[in-house]
Amino acid sequence: MTGSRSSSAQTGVTRVVCEQLAPRVGDLIHNKGLALDAVRRALADGADIVVLPELVTSGYVFETAEEARTTAITVEDPFFSDLSAVLAGSQSVVVLGFCQAADDTLYNSAAVVDASGVRAVYRKTHLWDRETLFFTPGDRTPPVVDTAHGRIGVLICYDLEFAEMPRRLALAGADLIAVPTNWPLVGHPAGQYPAEIIQAQSAARANGVFIACADRSGVERGQQWTQGTAVIDQFGWLTSAATGPTTSSAPSAPSASSASDQRAVADLFLHLSRDKAISPHNDLLGDRRPDIYAQETPLL
Amino acid sequence: MTGSRSSSAQTGVTRVVCEQLAPRVGDLIHNKGLALDAVRRALADGADIVVLPELVTSGYVFETAEEARTTAITVEDPFFSDLSAVLAGSQSVVVLGFCQAADDTLYNSAAVVDASGVRAVYRKTHLWDRETLFFTPGDRTPPVVDTAHGRIGVLICYDLEFAEMPRRLALAGADLIAVPTNWPLVGHPAGQYPAEIIQAQSAARANGVFIACADRSGVERGQQWTQGTAVIDQFGWLTSAATGPTTSSAPSAPSASSASDQRAVADLFLHLSRDKAISPHNDLLGDRRPDIYAQETPLL
Repeated sequence: MTGSRSSSAQTGVTRVVCEQLAPRVGDLIHNKGLALDAVRRALADGADIVVLPELVTSGYVFETAEEARTTAITVEDPFFSDLSAVLAGSQSVVVLGFCQAADDTLYNSAAVVDASGVRAVYRKTHLWDRETLFFTPGDRTPPVVDTAHGRIGVLICYDLEFAEMPRRLALAGADLIAVPTNWPLVGHPAGQYPAEIIQAQSAARANGVFIACADRSGVERGQQWTQGTAVIDQFGWLTSAATGPTTSSAPSAPSASSASDQRAVADLFLHLSRDKAISPHNDLLGDRRPDIYAQETPLL
Repeated sequence: MTGSRSSSAQTGVTRVVCEQLAPRVGDLIHNKGLALDAVRRALADGADIVVLPELVTSGYVFETAEEARTTAITVEDPFFSDLSAVLAGSQSVVVLGFCQAADDTLYNSAAVVDASGVRAVYRKTHLWDRETLFFTPGDRTPPVVDTAHGRIGVLICYDLEFAEMPRRLALAGADLIAVPTNWPLVGHPAGQYPAEIIQAQSAARANGVFIACADRSGVERGQQWTQGTAVIDQFGWLTSAATGPTTSSAPSAPSASSASDQRAVADLFLHLSRDKAISPHNDLLGDRRPDIYAQETPLL
């Protein structure tokens, strides 16, 4: 299957744009427009792959399950056909988070969308903190979507901190893992990147895959965000970040710059992810020892 | 079992000392003395747990399998009884790497030693580069050793880059993962920690365990080392490091300081690793979804 498309991953550079946005909690109409505008802006800048934050259509800091429900949409919602219309005539792909209504329950989901429509939906399986009050966790592994630009895997926020998840996506052939996220701001030591970025760097390096994270800007009901929007290469190094490491161990105030200033843009040769050789005798995935991982660990 | 000992992990602080050493390749007698001296020095400084580098008794950059064989010892070698004698009267524990002869083959192994003798031996399962020419990979998961200071898991160098390994040790109850290592120096972006440190930080944070890495100093047959000796807390932050992040993206020259200057010392409350709660609704290990990890990932 994967050889049947003309692919920018096989022929050249792929531009990845992660837009760090500030949706308004509960304001579905505003947020749909915000997301569509961000995609239009990214396309105007030549984006092949656009990543928007987790729950970008709904906001995050819900007070009640009822409030969350008012922002929920199905995959048949006109928003997705509007988004595909924005992408018409392009081979560009968008990955974004949304509050999904399905089966009479709510999911914290992400959609992979291109001009042909919704290619895949993934429901977050590792829910963070109060999300457990509003959402049902997904029960399926995320898919890898074969696109004109390479194979895109999807994780949402806290999912990325379970190394089993990027590993599965890499084993399934992902070149890039797109991560819509809402990282609540916590302090970290001076001069270091946020812990969530370190987790992403480790996942990229350990699997030889690119990772693109779109975080939040702004403040929502008092909640500040890490503003960790970043693109990480297959060696685990940041190639683009919306904001740098803090210089203080205290949580810093949100940037005063507008949302449109906060983005990460990287031009990547995604096909490089397909070479897992890291020495004449080593292969990142081939060196795995599933026989060992399945054993019981003795306590001596 | 684990409650049957008086434990510094339950009663107070544990001092962890990682000694960054420069053994001479092939000089078994010299290196045994170097290792014993390093342990004596650490004990004099109050060490409860001492970590020495990978293959500290043999050196690393072998030219031939025959040379490696000349440095190989069994667990019955007098070195280990000498080491236990140094530890006599203390509850201190040493974790160090050695070239192991067993079953007519060579292993890149690590021993956990206390005053009672060798408590456990682990054979490295993920061999790096030319190690594959000299060593047979181990076929058993590393043990977790219950000591007076808490439960110690062991990994060796490249093992740590397979997230499955620290995960297994954490699931088996490890408080601290001791990592004898020889990290060959490679370049990395200015102002960032070496990639191997980032991997260790991620493993510590993802599992809520402490990690203590003892790397190499000096230059061996032209091979420079990362000098990444460091102790990392259960949140993934460095509490002590022998050397800081580089300020240049080029590999830097080895430090001119003597080996005895290069160490990481940290006083840790290891019992903190037993609290995996990271929010009112989250538990680092409890949040795992083995049902998801076992599924086939679809390619769409």
